[in-house]
Amino acid sequence: MADPAPWSNEISAREWIDRGGAQVVLGVDGGGTNTSCVVMECAEPKSGSDSVACGNVLGGGSAGSSNYHSVGEETAHRAIEAAIAKALSAARVPRAAVQRVCMGMSGVDRPSDIELVLGWIRSIFPDPTVDVSVHNDAIAALATGTGGKLHGCVLIAGTGTIAYGVAEDGRTCRAAGAGPALGDRGSGHAIASEALSAVMRADDGRGPETKLTGAILAKLGLSKPEDLIGWAYKDHSWARVAALVPVVKDTAAAGDAVALRILEEAVEELASTVEAVVRRLKLGGEDGTASFPLVLVGGVLSDGSFVAEKVTRKLTEKYPHAKAVISKQDPAVGAAMLAWQDHTKRMSSNK
Amino acid sequence: MADPAPWSNEISAREWIDRGGAQVVLGVDGGGTNTSCVVMECAEPKSGSDSVACGNVLGGGSAGSSNYHSVGEETAHRAIEAAIAKALSAARVPRAAVQRVCMGMSGVDRPSDIELVLGWIRSIFPDPTVDVSVHNDAIAALATGTGGKLHGCVLIAGTGTIAYGVAEDGRTCRAAGAGPALGDRGSGHAIASEALSAVMRADDGRGPETKLTGAILAKLGLSKPEDLIGWAYKDHSWARVAALVPVVKDTAAAGDAVALRILEEAVEELASTVEAVVRRLKLGGEDGTASFPLVLVGGVLSDGSFVAEKVTRKLTEKYPHAKAVISKQDPAVGAAMLAWQDHTKRMSSNK
Repeated sequence: MADPAPWSNEISAREWIDRGGAQVVLGVDGGGTNTSCVVMECAEPKSGSDSVACGNVLGGGSAGSSNYHSVGEETAHRAIEAAIAKALSAARVPRAAVQRVCMGMSGVDRPSDIELVLGWIRSIFPDPTVDVSVHNDAIAALATGTGGKLHGCVLIAGTGTIAYGVAEDGRTCRAAGAGPALGDRGSGHAIASEALSAVMRADDGRGPETKLTGAILAKLGLSKPEDLIGWAYKDHSWARVAALVPVVKDTAAAGDAVALRILEEAVEELASTVEAVVRRLKLGGEDGTASFPLVLVGGVLSDGSFVAEKVTRKLTEKYPHAKAVISKQDPAVGAAMLAWQDHTKRMSSNK
Repeated sequence: MADPAPWSNEISAREWIDRGGAQVVLGVDGGGTNTSCVVMECAEPKSGSDSVACGNVLGGGSAGSSNYHSVGEETAHRAIEAAIAKALSAARVPRAAVQRVCMGMSGVDRPSDIELVLGWIRSIFPDPTVDVSVHNDAIAALATGTGGKLHGCVLIAGTGTIAYGVAEDGRTCRAAGAGPALGDRGSGHAIASEALSAVMRADDGRGPETKLTGAILAKLGLSKPEDLIGWAYKDHSWARVAALVPVVKDTAAAGDAVALRILEEAVEELASTVEAVVRRLKLGGEDGTASFPLVLVGGVLSDGSFVAEKVTRKLTEKYPHAKAVISKQDPAVGAAMLAWQDHTKRMSSNK
């Protein structure tokens, strides 16, 4: 691995204090493809800052997937460690300056998941005065699109997909997020899997011809559809499959009917995932006309894409006062914002 | 493992010859759930035997999955070894009496797959005078339903699914058979995955309520849908998922609309898989009215089941002279029949 040994470039706490360095919080976004970490200063935001409730970001770092359901515990743990080490090193902040860590982790929902990740962070920050919170990545993603307010519905569609909602009275609920084996449709993994299936089906006559065949084989450096069998079962990483989404988007944009149909089905699935959350939390009020933030995040929903545009249109037709935002901010910043808010609350209550 | 050490109960070649024992062939069916082996005597079939081209079966044995794409090479190799050892032990036949081995293996199609399996068998039977042939399991399954004649189309739907056809002029083709990651719909794995997805979708409001929830949780000893997440990602074996098919069948039979819809979709997929093969090989002639055997095999297509009945009806509507047979015979017997035929051909040509 090319990752630096954790903490190798770290300066000491003493050096940091002598330089007048502030205390910091860390936000970590642990996804199915990447893990990223940002270091945020525990100070009032600069005036004129875009963000309503956000300290200054001093640096960031990233590593591989930390969804342990996909890559296993050891790899996930190491990815988090590497992302934190790189971020602190880039920000030139010592570990001793960290006051609070907020994790937004994909695949983490159950108390046992949370305990597992807490254990990993405690092994990096054994000091019990460092507060650690572990959330599903959806919470952090929602925060990025609402200026730090926990209200509304976020739809994430990257390697996996989940919709997560928070009502103004604090009720929460989610839909999807259980991974490809349990009905997560519309995710990057699902879109790419459908595309791979379409290639095989065109090849043996079960389905129509599609330009996905040439495009996917070229992307993977394979010569015929049959070669996909060896490729598909060599490695069970979901991210590796989801990495074919840009090929599907390009092929659809070039007018291929099969690729377009796959994206249209993803739109239906993603919209119905959001609707399940909005309906249960009554985010649109009794009649669907109340206003609420709708935050779209992830590679499948990138700004200006066919899927993002159609999902937004479909949902705003149903909920005309939903305020749709395609969030471009790193969910790690959302996690850091949550950590920062919790930290400033604690500081206020201690005064 | 409770398997006996290979060859532990085997008698010697000398003892066998002294007893007047005949030479034998082995047929092996290596599937995604089980591997079974039968020992067939190299003698003319008993008069009055049902089978047109079949020696007498002296014994059989079985072990776990030997689809190496699913369980890995080491486990697959060991399963084949165990099934052969058990069968020879049950038949009380020594290894030295084996003249020919015919393997019908799921997941084996490409020359590299065949070489791999040949290597495993050669390590068990190093004597170069023992002939070994390795086929896709579909070839052996077809033989079970046609009395040993290689003509027609076989549809296998067990843990996985594949349709394989042989034209009278010897042309062959297949559809599906590339596993769950590459568009095999209608398989046991696909049916059970849809059922698991339906449970999750009912739970979070994306889909309608279904009695599959109670039935599947009871079967797995879990208390709530969320517990399926831990269950689903603990183990990547396809057979473990496909083992839920009887629950889906029972729930559909009890009138659950969601379970019924899953089986109806499987019927559509399985019928279209067969049609892709029949169309390409023109098994039904130019106008679809020619006669050909249609052999249905595997747990999903068990005799009298909803899926077997509907698939048969759908296909015989389209190809009125297709002769549909639900084969109850162990595909290992089909593999042994092929070995026996090849052996008797060689014996005749040597005379």
